[in-house]
Amino acid sequence: MQEHYFIGVDGGGTKCKAVLQNHSGQIIGEGLSGSANPATDLPLAIVSIVESCKLALSHAGVPLSQLKFCHVGMGLAGVNLPSVNRKMREWQNPFASVHLTTDLHIACLGAHDGQDGAVIIAGTGSSAFAVVDGNQLILGGHGFTAGDKSGGAWMGRAAAQVCLEAMDELAPYSSLVDLLKTHLNCKDATAVAEKVNGAPAVFFATLAPLVIAAAEQNDINAVAILQNGGKYLSKLARRLLAHSGERLSMIGGLAPSVTPWLDTDLQQRLVNPIHSPDFGALLLAQQQTGVTSSSLLIKKTTIKEAS
Amino acid sequence: MQEHYFIGVDGGGTKCKAVLQNHSGQIIGEGLSGSANPATDLPLAIVSIVESCKLALSHAGVPLSQLKFCHVGMGLAGVNLPSVNRKMREWQNPFASVHLTTDLHIACLGAHDGQDGAVIIAGTGSSAFAVVDGNQLILGGHGFTAGDKSGGAWMGRAAAQVCLEAMDELAPYSSLVDLLKTHLNCKDATAVAEKVNGAPAVFFATLAPLVIAAAEQNDINAVAILQNGGKYLSKLARRLLAHSGERLSMIGGLAPSVTPWLDTDLQQRLVNPIHSPDFGALLLAQQQTGVTSSSLLIKKTTIKEAS
Repeated sequence: MQEHYFIGVDGGGTKCKAVLQNHSGQIIGEGLSGSANPATDLPLAIVSIVESCKLALSHAGVPLSQLKFCHVGMGLAGVNLPSVNRKMREWQNPFASVHLTTDLHIACLGAHDGQDGAVIIAGTGSSAFAVVDGNQLILGGHGFTAGDKSGGAWMGRAAAQVCLEAMDELAPYSSLVDLLKTHLNCKDATAVAEKVNGAPAVFFATLAPLVIAAAEQNDINAVAILQNGGKYLSKLARRLLAHSGERLSMIGGLAPSVTPWLDTDLQQRLVNPIHSPDFGALLLAQQQTGVTSSSLLIKKTTIKEAS
Repeated sequence: MQEHYFIGVDGGGTKCKAVLQNHSGQIIGEGLSGSANPATDLPLAIVSIVESCKLALSHAGVPLSQLKFCHVGMGLAGVNLPSVNRKMREWQNPFASVHLTTDLHIACLGAHDGQDGAVIIAGTGSSAFAVVDGNQLILGGHGFTAGDKSGGAWMGRAAAQVCLEAMDELAPYSSLVDLLKTHLNCKDATAVAEKVNGAPAVFFATLAPLVIAAAEQNDINAVAILQNGGKYLSKLARRLLAHSGERLSMIGGLAPSVTPWLDTDLQQRLVNPIHSPDFGALLLAQQQTGVTSSSLLIKKTTIKEAS
């Protein structure tokens, strides 16, 4: 009988990661490729997805001809939009089967080993997801312009705002202001305004580490920004717990930096995520093809890191 | 002896207005043309400026050949940027003389009849200006992305933010949320997010009237937005008064809507503006060419409205 494989794909705006699992449940390969956000660029996303899967096969020494025996679970940003979802499902893909869901869903599946639970994701943006008995709750993640509060881009923009106010002597002048002026190589408010006006989320996200560093030194403006963000995340967390009742994890690159600003009782409720989102995608593929996770136990130790 | 004229030009992102005054101090013509923001589009700004002046001459029945005898004061957005200012001064213009300053300066000159004083301008954006003994103070006006607090675009974005939070049940659900959903023709948070993400300042400014209308009905979210904006404007006003000491006026399309949210003592300190910014530009031309305002009294009543 032909051997089957499972692939978990975690696709986002900056990179796409695939993990390959053989029929005995061993993780045997990983692949990393470029941008895979089908809402931004669908053809590029498809190229990146296929490339990451091929790299995972190559990494494991499995011939690329075996792609057609791979069951692929994939979590992608943007597929909650109906038009994007439909286009992805119309894709004539080279795999045995594709099981598509959001990046939020695989993050939650991974964090809670495929069980019910909730996650708050804090990175460039912010969003939240819970699933109970198949019922999904998606909160936040509304984008940089008018959402994504407490994410890195929001933090950076808030820092630019208070920096400009401080330079007008309308807010306290703190070390954060000097950090920003130095980082942006600007001497006055006009120069700062010119630099930040119309800048994209990724630009502002590069300012977030300055805010986090300043807050650790009790900078009054940085602390106010993170407190404000923390209030929002606490509200998110309470909504998620009311829905899912059980496990809640903070994930994403800024999780360690924003967690201390949650209400204390919520910090104590948090559990550590069990797996990463790409493993969540793998669990999805297993669940959707009817393979129980016990028979395909993920063995994280059997693979060396793919760079 | 050849008769001389004065022209006051008020140029901005949406329109350019010119007023024409004859040597006896009578306002004899007006002209209205298109966008004149040299920071955005310098060649277009020049075209609009010349066109508005020609229209003012035509309106007064003065031959266009007389342009070269016109002393023009002009206040333009963006000329506080050194590169833009230099390019405008290099312009081989068709006038007898050009006296260039910012849109803020002519607004202040107009509001206080050429005397020292301060203005807060609340329109799509927000900014503030004071002049005392020739010393100018410019505050705010740092643009939509991270500045312009309490301006129309800022209000609209704040409304979108709270609307999205309310739809996630993280903020109170108020009538403002329904007003926005109806205005944007959106049923859920995903649709609202798609509509507002990356939208420009002018888009968000169209939402400001909803916020103002809702606040008049004591809508909890709208009141919070205008209170927040009012706090910023109050800080601006106190800085201006500390600098200029004397006259402070609120001007711009949103001035009547934001003034009630200033601290009460500040509201009582406000004085009504005397002239509009285009008259301020005319005063600038008079001052710069050494003509005293008493000998060239502006007679507003001698002209019928140019449409």
